[in-house]
Amino acid sequence: MNITPKVTLVGAGPGDPDLITLKGLRAIQAADVILYDALVNEELLEQAKETCTKVYVGKRAEALSTSQDQINQLLVDYALTHGHVVRLKGGDPFVFGRGGEELDFVRRFGIPTASIPGISSSTGLTGLQQIPLTYRGISESFWVITGATSAGMLSADLEKAVETNATVVVLMGYAKLSQIVALYQQHGKSNLPIAVIQNGSLPNERIALGTVDSILEEVEKKKLAMPAIIVLGEVVKKHQHFDLLKDEIRSFSI
Amino acid sequence: MNITPKVTLVGAGPGDPDLITLKGLRAIQAADVILYDALVNEELLEQAKETCTKVYVGKRAEALSTSQDQINQLLVDYALTHGHVVRLKGGDPFVFGRGGEELDFVRRFGIPTASIPGISSSTGLTGLQQIPLTYRGISESFWVITGATSAGMLSADLEKAVETNATVVVLMGYAKLSQIVALYQQHGKSNLPIAVIQNGSLPNERIALGTVDSILEEVEKKKLAMPAIIVLGEVVKKHQHFDLLKDEIRSFSI
Repeated sequence: MNITPKVTLVGAGPGDPDLITLKGLRAIQAADVILYDALVNEELLEQAKETCTKVYVGKRAEALSTSQDQINQLLVDYALTHGHVVRLKGGDPFVFGRGGEELDFVRRFGIPTASIPGISSSTGLTGLQQIPLTYRGISESFWVITGATSAGMLSADLEKAVETNATVVVLMGYAKLSQIVALYQQHGKSNLPIAVIQNGSLPNERIALGTVDSILEEVEKKKLAMPAIIVLGEVVKKHQHFDLLKDEIRSFSI
Repeated sequence: MNITPKVTLVGAGPGDPDLITLKGLRAIQAADVILYDALVNEELLEQAKETCTKVYVGKRAEALSTSQDQINQLLVDYALTHGHVVRLKGGDPFVFGRGGEELDFVRRFGIPTASIPGISSSTGLTGLQQIPLTYRGISESFWVITGATSAGMLSADLEKAVETNATVVVLMGYAKLSQIVALYQQHGKSNLPIAVIQNGSLPNERIALGTVDSILEEVEKKKLAMPAIIVLGEVVKKHQHFDLLKDEIRSFSI
C-alpha cells in the first residue's frame, strides 16, 4: 500500500458541530486518522470514513490525558503508517491550541502540513450572543488573551490591556475571574461592562452580564462554571439584554 | 401570505467559499433575501433558493456604493416585506463589519435578529499560512486592529500595541503600511518579523515575509496590493518559508 503522509490541523469551532467550515468537514471525511481533543464535538467524528482511526488525545484547560510530546509523536507515527492525519482541535488551531508546536515537530520529519481555520471562541461565541467586538466610535480593536499562562499567573498582557480601549476577550480564564475583576478595579474600571459566556454555542449555553463590580455576584447567581470565556469592554453594552440588566440593577437599588 | 420578519447576520469567511460554516450555508439556503458585500464570494449565492432576492450593497474598504444608512433601511424594508433577510458579510460580521450598527437599527423596529459567526481574516488567513497567532513562550495573546479608522488616521490602539508582546494583526491597513513600519521603527522594532497576505484563501493568494525594516521592499518586489492583512510579531518567524528568507537576506548581504 502506498502511504502519503500528511498532517492537517483542523479547527472544529467552539462547540456547535454546525460551526465547522465546509473545508474542515471535507478534511474529516478524507482523513485516515483523526486525533481529537475533549472540546471537540464528537458528532463531527461520525462524518469520518468507516476505516478512519479515531484517537482521543485529551483535555484542554485541564490536565492533559495525553502529553503534548506524546501527541506530537502520535501525529508523526500515524502519518507515516496511515497517511493523512487530521488533528481536530476545538476553536481555531492557532488560538492557544498549540498548533504551532505540533507543526514544528511534524515538519522535522519532512511530513507536509496544512491548516484549516476554525471559528475561535473569541469571535464566535461573542458573535452568537450578538456582542460586536468592534463598533464605530466605541472600539476599533479587540485583544484576545489567555487566562491560563504556563506559569499559572495572569498574563502580563492583561495588565497592559486593562489600560487600553480595546475590547478584551480572555479565553480559559474563568478560574481567574476574581483576579481579573481586581485588576480592572485597580485601574478604575469598576463600571466597565463585562460578559461571561459558558458552554457557548451549545444547547446548555449560559451568559452572565454585568459590570466589573457586579459580575462576580452575577456568575454566582447564575451558577456559571467552566468552560467559559470573558469579554470586557463598552461593546458588551450592545448585548440585547444589557439594558434590561441595568433596569434590574436600578430597581434593585431603589 | 404570512411574513415573519427576521434579520440574520452571516459571516461568509475570508474569501474561499469553503470557509463558510455549515450553519452559515444553511442560513443562505433558507433566506428570502440576501444583502451581500463586495468581499463575499459570489459562489455562495448559488446556494440560495430560486425565489431568493439577492441585493448587492457595495464595497468594503472603498467608497460604499450603498451607504450604511441605506443598507440599514433595506434590511428593515426587506424583512417586513419578504421575511428572512440574510446579511452576508466578508469575514466575521462583528470584526469591523458594522454588524453591530445594523442590528441596533433593525431592533428598533422590533424585528428579531440573529448572528452566525464567520472565519475572520485575522485568524483565518494567518491560519491558512500556518502562522500561529499564539505560541507558548513567544506570544500569549493577539490584538486585531483596524487600519482604516473613520478619521483616516492610524488607530491610537496601534500606538499602544507596538509597545506590547502581543501578536498584532492589522486589517484594512495596507494603504498605511509605510506609516505602520515607521511607527514600529520608532519603537526600536526594526527587526520584528512581519507578513503581508494579499487575497488570502483565494487562488491568487500571495504573501510577503520580512522584518519591519525589509517589508516595504518585499511587498514592492512581489507587487502586492489591496486587499491585504498585516501580521506583526515573533510568531511570523514560524512561517515555513521565513528561514529561507533569512538565508536569502544573508546571502544577499555577503
